[in-house]
Amino acid sequence: MENGTMNMEIPTNVTIKGILGTLMASIDEQKNKKRVISLGMGDPTAYSCFTTNDNVQDSVVETLESQKFNGYSPTVGLLQTRKAISEYLSLNLPYKLVEDDVYITAGCSQAIEVAISILARPNANILVPKPGFPIYELCAAFRNVEIRHFDLLPDKGWEVDLEAIDALSDQNTVAIVIINPGNPCGNVYSYQHLKKIAEAAKKHKILVIADEVYGHLAFGENPFVPMGVFGSMVPVLTLGSLSKRWLVPGWRLGWLVTTDPNGIFKNAKTVERMKKYFDICGGPATFIQAAVPRILKDTKEVFFTKTLCILKQTSDICFKKITEIPCFTCPQKPQGAMAVMVKLNVSLLKDISDDIDFCFQASKRRIRDTPSRSYSGSKKLGSHNFCCRTIFS
Amino acid sequence: MENGTMNMEIPTNVTIKGILGTLMASIDEQKNKKRVISLGMGDPTAYSCFTTNDNVQDSVVETLESQKFNGYSPTVGLLQTRKAISEYLSLNLPYKLVEDDVYITAGCSQAIEVAISILARPNANILVPKPGFPIYELCAAFRNVEIRHFDLLPDKGWEVDLEAIDALSDQNTVAIVIINPGNPCGNVYSYQHLKKIAEAAKKHKILVIADEVYGHLAFGENPFVPMGVFGSMVPVLTLGSLSKRWLVPGWRLGWLVTTDPNGIFKNAKTVERMKKYFDICGGPATFIQAAVPRILKDTKEVFFTKTLCILKQTSDICFKKITEIPCFTCPQKPQGAMAVMVKLNVSLLKDISDDIDFCFQASKRRIRDTPSRSYSGSKKLGSHNFCCRTIFS
Repeated sequence: MENGTMNMEIPTNVTIKGILGTLMASIDEQKNKKRVISLGMGDPTAYSCFTTNDNVQDSVVETLESQKFNGYSPTVGLLQTRKAISEYLSLNLPYKLVEDDVYITAGCSQAIEVAISILARPNANILVPKPGFPIYELCAAFRNVEIRHFDLLPDKGWEVDLEAIDALSDQNTVAIVIINPGNPCGNVYSYQHLKKIAEAAKKHKILVIADEVYGHLAFGENPFVPMGVFGSMVPVLTLGSLSKRWLVPGWRLGWLVTTDPNGIFKNAKTVERMKKYFDICGGPATFIQAAVPRILKDTKEVFFTKTLCILKQTSDICFKKITEIPCFTCPQKPQGAMAVMVKLNVSLLKDISDDIDFCFQASKRRIRDTPSRSYSGSKKLGSHNFCCRTIFS
Repeated sequence: MENGTMNMEIPTNVTIKGILGTLMASIDEQKNKKRVISLGMGDPTAYSCFTTNDNVQDSVVETLESQKFNGYSPTVGLLQTRKAISEYLSLNLPYKLVEDDVYITAGCSQAIEVAISILARPNANILVPKPGFPIYELCAAFRNVEIRHFDLLPDKGWEVDLEAIDALSDQNTVAIVIINPGNPCGNVYSYQHLKKIAEAAKKHKILVIADEVYGHLAFGENPFVPMGVFGSMVPVLTLGSLSKRWLVPGWRLGWLVTTDPNGIFKNAKTVERMKKYFDICGGPATFIQAAVPRILKDTKEVFFTKTLCILKQTSDICFKKITEIPCFTCPQKPQGAMAVMVKLNVSLLKDISDDIDFCFQASKRRIRDTPSRSYSGSKKLGSHNFCCRTIFS
C-alpha cells in the first residue's frame, strides 16, 4: 500500500471548484464588510428566484411514499424512466429514440465520466472547447485520455474554430465535445453552425459528445437545437439532466443517450461495454428515477418561460454592469445557459499579473472600479485571457 | 470513432446481474406454472417482510420539502452527513473518526469503484476473496488492476486462507478485500480472525478494503466487529451504506471511510487525489444526504432487532430446506448478511455439467428433488464447485 500510494499520480488539472475553494477560504468578509457572492458555480438554487415547480417535488414525494422504489433499479436505469426520457428528447428530433438508447446517470457529471471512460483506449485523444468545462479534463486525466483544445471564437459568438478541428484530429481522435447552450460562454449555436460541426466530425470519423445539460435554456436570437438532430450524419452521445431546466442540480438525475439512429456507435459490443460499465457506477436513487415520467409530463410551459425570463433579465443586468467596468469587456451578450465570459484587460490595472491574481486581489481589497462582488472561477486562457465564468443572480 | 470503438476491450467478467438476466429471460413461467423467485440479488425490499422504518422515510420527506437541499452538495458529501457517519462508525472503534475521514458515495458500489480506482497504478494487483462479490473484478478490469483470488475456507466458517495471502502478495499488491458480514457466504468473522487478517496485511504492507455493506447484520455466534478496530495496525478503507441495515438499497447512499488513525494511507497527496476523484463522480442526492443525521440518530434498536430476527428465521428455514435436498450440502449455517453458499454435488444429477448448467436446467424443467424455486446467481468456483448465492425470503 505504501508502494501503491506513493506512486499515485494526481491529475494536475485546475477545477473551478478547486479555485473557488481556495479563493473563498482567502476572503475575510469581516474586513471587506461586503457579502461575497460566488459566481463560479452553476447552481441556480443558491438564489431564491430559482425554485423548482411544485409538481416536480410532489412527484418525488409520491414515489418515495409509495414505498415501491426503495430497492435497486437496473444499473442502466428504470425502464419507465429511460422510456420517458427517450420520448422527451424525441420531441425535438427527426427520428424516434427508444428506451435502450437512454442510460440514467447520477447527474450530468457522471454522464461525462461514463462517456470519457467508455471511449478511453491507449493513445486516444478527445477535442474539447477552450474556454470549456474543466471536468472533461479531469475525467480524461484519470482515464489517460489526451485532451486537445480547440478555440471558441469570442468575436463569432463563441462558435467553434472549425479549422482547428481539422488541424487537431488524427487517427487517435475519438470524440469532440460540444457544450450547447454553452458553459462558460453563454453561447447558443445556430442550426447551421451545429451542422458544420457535425460535418467536421463525420469527416474525421469522430463522434460528438453533446453536453446539453443547459438544454432549452436559450433566451437570445438562436433557438436551442439539440445536436442529435444530426445523429443520422454522425453518432452523438447526448448528455443531459434535470439539474438546470428543472432547477434541481442536487437531485443528481442525469442521462447519457446514444443519439445514433444508424447504429454506427451503438453496435452490440459497445452496448455490452456500456452496460458493464454501468454495473460499476452508482446511479441516482430509484425513487427519484421513478418520478421522472410524471415530472416530464406534468411540468407546464409557464414554469420554463418564467425561468427564461429571469435568466434574460439577470443576464442583461450582469452584461450592463460588466460593460460599465473599464478593465472588463464582454464580447458576446449571453444567449443561453447561466454563464457569461468576460475579457480582462490587465494593462489597465496596477500590480495585477493575470486573471487568477485579479480574483485573489479582488477578494482582499477594492480594485479601482471593481464592483462589490468577487468574480471567481477564472481560468488562464492563453491568448484570450478571459476570466469570469459567472452565473447571473 | 469507429477506430475507437472497434478497439475497445470489454471486460469478460461474469456478473451476478448478467447471469441472472440471462437466466430470468430463459424462464417460461407459464410453462413452469410456478412463480420464480430470484435469489441472486441482495435486495431485501423485494419482500414485504423487509420494510424500512417510518422515521427513515420521514427524514427524507422532511429534507426534500424544506427545499434547502435541491442544490449541489460538495462532491465529497455534505459536511453534516460526513460528520454524522463519522460519529456513527466511531461508536464501535477504539478511536474517533472525523468528518474528513468520510466520503459520501452513490451506494456501496460506487465506494468500491472509487476504492479500486484510487489504488490503480501500472502493474497493481489486489487480493479478493473467492467466493466473492463480482463487482470487484469488474471494477478492477476497467481500471487495469490485476485480481488475485484467495480462498475462503468452507470448513472453517468461510475464514480467509491466510497462507494464500502470503503466497499471493508481492511488491505490486496494494490491497486485500474483506467482506464481513460475508456476501455471498453469510460468514461473520471473529475478532481474532480479523486480527490475523490485519497482521497479514501489515506484514505485506497492503491496506484492507473492508466491505461492511452488511455491517451489524450478524445473527449467529460472532458479533459484528468492524475491521476499523485494527486501523491502528493497518490502514483500512471501510465501505458501507444505508442499503442493507436500513433496507433502502435503492437510495444509493453509501460511504467510503479512511479508517486510518495513524495517517499511513491518508497523507496529503492521497487525500488530494481522492477529492479530485470525487469531483468526477456523481454522488447521492443532496436531500437524501441531508436526511442521514436524523436517520442515524432516530432509528430505534427495535427496528434493527426485528430485521435480525427475520433474517435468522428465514436463514434457518433456508438452511433446513437446502439440507433436505440430496444434491446440496451447506458447509456453514449463515451467521450474517443475507446470503448462503451451497455446495452442489453434480455426480448425483443426470446430464448436468456444472452449477451454471444446473441453474439453467432448473429454470426449464423439474430436476429430481429440486425445490420449486430457481436457484440462481451461481458461479463456477473451481475446486469448490459451490453455487447458490441466495437471499432468504
